[in-house]
Amino acid sequence: MSGTAPLSAVTGLPVVAMVGGGQLARMTHQAAIALGQTLRVLSAGPEESAALVSADVQLGDHRDLEALRRLADGATVLTFDHEHVPTEHLHELEQAGHRVAPGPAALVHAQDKLVLRAALAAAGEPQPAWARVDTVADVEEFAARTGWPVVLKTPRGGYDGKGVFVVGDAEEAAGLLGEHGTLLAEERVAMRRELSAQVARSPFGQVAVWPVVETVQRDGVCAEVLAPAPGLSDERATAAQELAVRIADRLGVVGMLAVELFETAEGVLVNELAMRPHNSGHWTIEGARTSQFEQHLRAVLDYPLGSTAMTAPVAVMANVLGGAASAPDWAGPALDERIHHLMAHWPDVKLHWYGKTQRPGRKLGHVTALGDDHAEVRARAVAAARYLADGVVDPAFAFERDH
Amino acid sequence: MSGTAPLSAVTGLPVVAMVGGGQLARMTHQAAIALGQTLRVLSAGPEESAALVSADVQLGDHRDLEALRRLADGATVLTFDHEHVPTEHLHELEQAGHRVAPGPAALVHAQDKLVLRAALAAAGEPQPAWARVDTVADVEEFAARTGWPVVLKTPRGGYDGKGVFVVGDAEEAAGLLGEHGTLLAEERVAMRRELSAQVARSPFGQVAVWPVVETVQRDGVCAEVLAPAPGLSDERATAAQELAVRIADRLGVVGMLAVELFETAEGVLVNELAMRPHNSGHWTIEGARTSQFEQHLRAVLDYPLGSTAMTAPVAVMANVLGGAASAPDWAGPALDERIHHLMAHWPDVKLHWYGKTQRPGRKLGHVTALGDDHAEVRARAVAAARYLADGVVDPAFAFERDH
Repeated sequence: MSGTAPLSAVTGLPVVAMVGGGQLARMTHQAAIALGQTLRVLSAGPEESAALVSADVQLGDHRDLEALRRLADGATVLTFDHEHVPTEHLHELEQAGHRVAPGPAALVHAQDKLVLRAALAAAGEPQPAWARVDTVADVEEFAARTGWPVVLKTPRGGYDGKGVFVVGDAEEAAGLLGEHGTLLAEERVAMRRELSAQVARSPFGQVAVWPVVETVQRDGVCAEVLAPAPGLSDERATAAQELAVRIADRLGVVGMLAVELFETAEGVLVNELAMRPHNSGHWTIEGARTSQFEQHLRAVLDYPLGSTAMTAPVAVMANVLGGAASAPDWAGPALDERIHHLMAHWPDVKLHWYGKTQRPGRKLGHVTALGDDHAEVRARAVAAARYLADGVVDPAFAFERDH
Repeated sequence: MSGTAPLSAVTGLPVVAMVGGGQLARMTHQAAIALGQTLRVLSAGPEESAALVSADVQLGDHRDLEALRRLADGATVLTFDHEHVPTEHLHELEQAGHRVAPGPAALVHAQDKLVLRAALAAAGEPQPAWARVDTVADVEEFAARTGWPVVLKTPRGGYDGKGVFVVGDAEEAAGLLGEHGTLLAEERVAMRRELSAQVARSPFGQVAVWPVVETVQRDGVCAEVLAPAPGLSDERATAAQELAVRIADRLGVVGMLAVELFETAEGVLVNELAMRPHNSGHWTIEGARTSQFEQHLRAVLDYPLGSTAMTAPVAVMANVLGGAASAPDWAGPALDERIHHLMAHWPDVKLHWYGKTQRPGRKLGHVTALGDDHAEVRARAVAAARYLADGVVDPAFAFERDH
C-alpha cells in the first residue's frame, strides 16, 4: 500500500470508490456530499439506485477485475455496498497499492458463513450449534445432536432470507446438498427475537457503537428496526456491544460492522455479519447524531469517528417492501400520489425512496419516525410504510409482539 | 400551464429543475435523493458545488433563454438556487407551459429592492424609511428627513453586502449615482440585531414556519445563525412569523421565503427577501425535523409540508468563510488534515463542505452544533468553523454580544 492515498484534484478531499450501486451507495452518497467527498460508484446499470443520483458512476460488474481496477484508480479507498466481490480480486487490488476497506481478510467473514462460524468458534464467541455438511450422513449426525428441523444455509451468496432453508428430514437435506454442494448446518434456535449491534472501526482502531436495536423480519426480510431494542436490559445491551467490538477488533474490520444476533433466554448468539452500512442502521440518518453512512466514510478513510448519541429517545425504521401497490394490476393511487398522502398524514415521518422499479417484495424505500414511546412511534412508522407499499391505511395494524 | 406536470419515466417521481449550481442546489440535491426525486441542475461550470455531486447537470448560463428552456423541458417544476434569472425569461417559460416556482410576479420582490419597498409600503408592513433616488437632490431631500449617513443600495444584483453603501454626504452619493444610476435610499436603522423568519408556502396555500433565528453578519456576510433567536420574546417571535406568512401570502410565494429583519427597540423592520433556501436556514438540516431544502422541494411540488419542529433546544450554524487557510501562502495543515482535526475535537459537530476552490472570503462550507445552551453551542460551532477557515483554535474567541 502506498504511503499517501490520492485525493481529488478538484476538492482536495477524498474520492471513495464504492462497489455496488444500490440504496446503500445512494445513501452513502448523501453523506459524502456533506463531507465534501466524491463517491464514485460501480453500478451494474444506469438505473440502479445510486447511479440515478451520483455524479461519478462507472458501469460494470463487481466480478470483473478490470472494472474494479478502473474504479480504484485514483480513489482514496475502495469500499462496498454489498459483499459479493471475489476475495482474490481484492487481494489483487491491495497488491496494486489500493486501499480496500474492509480488507479481504476481514470481509471473507461476511461473505462465507462457514469461515465466520469457524472464526467465532476459535474466538469462543456465542453462536448456534453448527457443522459443515457435505453429505446426508453429515446432516443426520448433526440432527442427532440438535434435533430436527435443521437449518441449512448456502455458505455464500445468500441475503434477505435467500439461501436459508429449514429442513425437516434427511430427504429434504439430500435435495439441497445435491443442488448446492457443501452447506452450513445450524440448530434452529429458540429465539425471543433478533437484535443487531452496529459498530464502526477505523484502521487506527477507534470504534464507535450505536444502541443495540431489535430487527423485525417478515419472510426472512427485515421489515422494521426498533431503536433502542425495547426492554433490553442495560447488561445485555452492553454485552452485545462488547461482543460486536471484540469481533470488529479480532477480524480487523474497517468501516461499518453489523452483528446480527439471536436473543434467547440465556443471552445472544451471533447469526451473521455485514461489513458495510446495513438495513438495521438506516434509523441512524435521523435518529443518531452520526449516521451509519457518514460513519462508514469516516471509518474507511481513517477520520476520527462521530458521535453515536441518539437524537430522540426512540427511533423506528420501517422498510417499504413492494406490496399490493407494486403489482401490475394496481388500480389505486400512483406512487407520487401515495407520497402526497403520506406527507399529509404523517408530516414528521421521514421518507427515503430509492428510485427503483417497483416490484412485489423488493426493498423500495424506508421511513423513519422518532418520538418518546415505542408503541406510538412504531405504529406511525409501520402505518406510513404500509400505506406506501399497499396503498391502504390499516388503523388496526397488529404488532407481532406487544411492545 | 398544462394540467399534469411530467414525472420521471424511470422513477415515476418529480424532476425538479434548479437554476444555479451552488451550495444551495448541492444541499437541495441531498434532500431530493431522500424523496426519490431527480434534481436537474443548470450550472455555470462543471466544478460548481452542485455539479460535482449531481447526476443530472446541464451546463449553461441562467441568462440564456434557450438554456432555461432545455432545463425546463420534461421537468415537473423549475426553481432557483439564486434570484438572478431575468424576469422576462420566466414569463416566457410560463407561457410555454412550464411550472415556475416561485413565479416571476413573486420573485421580482427578491430581485428588485425598489419593487419590494413599494410592495411592502402598499401592504403597510414595517420597513425602514426609504426612497427611490435618481439624483443627488433626491438623496439630499431624503437625508433631510432621516439624517446622514444614508444607506444606498443598487436595486438589483446585490448579495452578501455587495451593492450596499453607507454614504456620509452628497458627494459620495453623486459618485454612486454616476456609477449605478437609480438607487434605493434607506435610513440607517438603529438596530439591535438582525433576525430571519423563514416560511415555506405551497401553491395550495399551506404554510410552514420555523422558529425565528438571529443572524450574525461580519463584513456584510452571514457568519452565524442562532436558532431560536436568543432572548426573543414569544410575542415578538410570533409577530415576525406572522409577518413572514403575510408577505408570502400577499406576494404569492411558492417555495421557501426568508424574510431578513432588523430588530429595533420597537419591533422588526423588513430588510430584504430571499425566495429559495437561504443561509439563515442551513441549521434546519440537523436542527429541525424537516430541512429548508426538503421543504422547498415539497412546496414547489405542492406536496404537503413537513414538520418544522426543532430536534434540540438550540442549534447554531457557523459559516466557514475562506480565511488564513485559504491564502496562497498557507503553510499549515491542508483541508483534509483540518477536517481530521475538526472531527477529532468536535465529534458531534456536523460538517457541510461545498467542494469549492478555497479563496479568502468565500463561503466554503458550514458547521452545525446542537445542544441545550446558546453560549456553549455557539462557542462550539464558531470554534469549529474558525479552525477550518483559519487553522487556529482560539479558546478565547470573543462573542460580539453577551448571549
